[in-house]
Amino acid sequence: MGAEQKMTMKPFGELMPRLQALEIIDNHIKPIKGTKKIPIGESNGRVIAENVVAGFDVPPFPRASMDGYAVKAKDTTGATEKKPIALKLIGIQHTGGVFDGTVNDGECLEIATGAPMPDGADAVVMVEYTNKDGEEVSIEGQVAPLRNMAEAGADMTKGTHVLSPGKTITPGVIGALAALGYIEVEVYRKPRVAIYSSGPEIAPQGQALKPGQIYDINSYTLATVIEANGGVAVVIGIVEDTVESIKESLGSASEHDLWVVSGGSSVGTKDLFSEVMEEMGTIYFHGVKTKPGKPTLFGEVDGTPMFGMPGYPTSCLNNSYVYLMPALRKMARLAPKHWVKVKLPMGHEMVSKSDREQFITVRIEDGKAYRVYKQSGDITSMTHADGFIILPIGTNKADEGEEVEVTLLHI
Amino acid sequence: MGAEQKMTMKPFGELMPRLQALEIIDNHIKPIKGTKKIPIGESNGRVIAENVVAGFDVPPFPRASMDGYAVKAKDTTGATEKKPIALKLIGIQHTGGVFDGTVNDGECLEIATGAPMPDGADAVVMVEYTNKDGEEVSIEGQVAPLRNMAEAGADMTKGTHVLSPGKTITPGVIGALAALGYIEVEVYRKPRVAIYSSGPEIAPQGQALKPGQIYDINSYTLATVIEANGGVAVVIGIVEDTVESIKESLGSASEHDLWVVSGGSSVGTKDLFSEVMEEMGTIYFHGVKTKPGKPTLFGEVDGTPMFGMPGYPTSCLNNSYVYLMPALRKMARLAPKHWVKVKLPMGHEMVSKSDREQFITVRIEDGKAYRVYKQSGDITSMTHADGFIILPIGTNKADEGEEVEVTLLHI
Repeated sequence: MGAEQKMTMKPFGELMPRLQALEIIDNHIKPIKGTKKIPIGESNGRVIAENVVAGFDVPPFPRASMDGYAVKAKDTTGATEKKPIALKLIGIQHTGGVFDGTVNDGECLEIATGAPMPDGADAVVMVEYTNKDGEEVSIEGQVAPLRNMAEAGADMTKGTHVLSPGKTITPGVIGALAALGYIEVEVYRKPRVAIYSSGPEIAPQGQALKPGQIYDINSYTLATVIEANGGVAVVIGIVEDTVESIKESLGSASEHDLWVVSGGSSVGTKDLFSEVMEEMGTIYFHGVKTKPGKPTLFGEVDGTPMFGMPGYPTSCLNNSYVYLMPALRKMARLAPKHWVKVKLPMGHEMVSKSDREQFITVRIEDGKAYRVYKQSGDITSMTHADGFIILPIGTNKADEGEEVEVTLLHI
Repeated sequence: MGAEQKMTMKPFGELMPRLQALEIIDNHIKPIKGTKKIPIGESNGRVIAENVVAGFDVPPFPRASMDGYAVKAKDTTGATEKKPIALKLIGIQHTGGVFDGTVNDGECLEIATGAPMPDGADAVVMVEYTNKDGEEVSIEGQVAPLRNMAEAGADMTKGTHVLSPGKTITPGVIGALAALGYIEVEVYRKPRVAIYSSGPEIAPQGQALKPGQIYDINSYTLATVIEANGGVAVVIGIVEDTVESIKESLGSASEHDLWVVSGGSSVGTKDLFSEVMEEMGTIYFHGVKTKPGKPTLFGEVDGTPMFGMPGYPTSCLNNSYVYLMPALRKMARLAPKHWVKVKLPMGHEMVSKSDREQFITVRIEDGKAYRVYKQSGDITSMTHADGFIILPIGTNKADEGEEVEVTLLHI
């Protein structure tokens, strides 16, 4: 064996429990500060970065909120179906125009929902409580002032502080921006997350596999999770597993907001990524007490946080839910992911021994949870999973029929 | 008053209860049949339209699933820490290459996780249970055949039917496609949903409001809901409220999969949309027994389903959640929206009288629900809402402290 073949197999030191790892991650992740203007129609799910103050009244004018007749409320006092009061019809007001006249005592104006209230009128009698006969309208119910109409600014009065930075944009927020005439809105920019897969066995799709090679999975699954959680995935591709290549990549660490490197973070053969991390930056932890996904590293280079993810696709994807997602969502200023959890009986006895906290993927069939039984390297254990259950440290089985809490992955 | 000013105010006939309306909608909505190929990295949340069969074994070769030493399992029989068995180290196998040799009796090969198993070996002893001294390795634990390794095809055997049409694509599905070398995947195309706002009072953003005008809100909120639920929003913009303009628009009905028209579906002044619908197509219902949103119409023109939504932004947005979303998701072949519901006490007494089923927006503060009190035309009642509660027909209030079920809007 030549010197270049030497390999140092140092087992992990003490493994970091999940909550402690998450706390360390949280301590080193800062929310994005940069902002940009984007069209309001593309802003759903983004985080607003400006104060929105109503520049004018919404609605800009008092308007009818029912179809009917604009009246002076006092003219309707005492009107009932049996004792209607007759008012003189002076015209009609569709939406979009302004009636050029005034409703005087004893008069009314036919008016459509949303149309501006005419001068002189202070209420609307709904069409259901009227009877029209030529230019006379019988009012069959009395109304109080401001009834069936909205005053100018009833929705947003000019000067109202409507939205503050940090709010996640929803359809209802976009509606308010549209009402105020916004075309663009200032939002926090998305964190740019650099991704690369390393390892000489990793081949890009589109070329035939050579002996010993497998296709790159982690670039795709990581990019998908990143894009679904407020980030922009910058796929660097496959980086050669040499000290020089890794150093060259990490030399541009600060060009991105976060890095996620998969493969090369195990403690086995050629664990070059952690070597380079030790030299170029700081490692906060290496090795987590969760299964799958033990060989996970978190640190930073030039102030940029870095995840080293296991090369195994399932471990990598599982960890992207458990460790990456909270970090990214904080950086993107999004609320933590709301995981939907359901309690279901196990469809079979399940034994899984480990001294680590275990994430076990399950599919749900007929209201029961069944383990998607695969080895930790097998991506199909995620492909066919509806969710996962967590076995705490010290628990190595669940009985058939035992109620377990399933965290649903795809809701 | 001239003839052109005539308006016919016919009150709605019998209102359609929500569940009945949803059943009618469901009966007239067909899932999209067309498909297209898209890059796998852009396929998250789409619906797969092809059968995916493994074209080769994944992994394509037997591989080590732990760092350690590839051995013949029988050579380790009886090995313990106190009575180790010495094997001759014949080389090293990193990932990405193939060892050019065979492990014979009494021999072992240093091997990295993910590397191809060498000929002759049928198990891996984890590095933790070994001691290396030069070219001799002490094995301190016995292993059974196939231990700490995966056979070729353990994840997906060549010929395995991995995915069927209709499955919604998740990160785990993308991982399986990547593993099989897919670059593109065939998915159902997204339904194209034409949207327009009508009404002479509606003005586009970017121009100053004239007297009596308000900005177009519904095009934006509808487009947002459509894009978030599997559709492509085709924003036609603002259509003039004349019979000719509406006819011209609906003349191209079949160019889109679904239409959503807002405004013009009330029974009041100038209700031209329903007039044109009656002439050009079929109206299945007009008027729903829910509040807000009574003047909702559903029908079809040239076989293309059509929603007529109320012009009021809140009514329109509420109805897009209640009526449009189920229709669109069925058309897009997505599972019905999973609404997250929580039970919370009301923070105050709330009285809201109506003979319809009521959707009342609330915000959540200190674990209690508070009505976002606004009139039905006010978009800010949605802007500031965390969710909504439903008051069934016949219920017109909730007491302070009464437990209500809040459907969360933004989770």
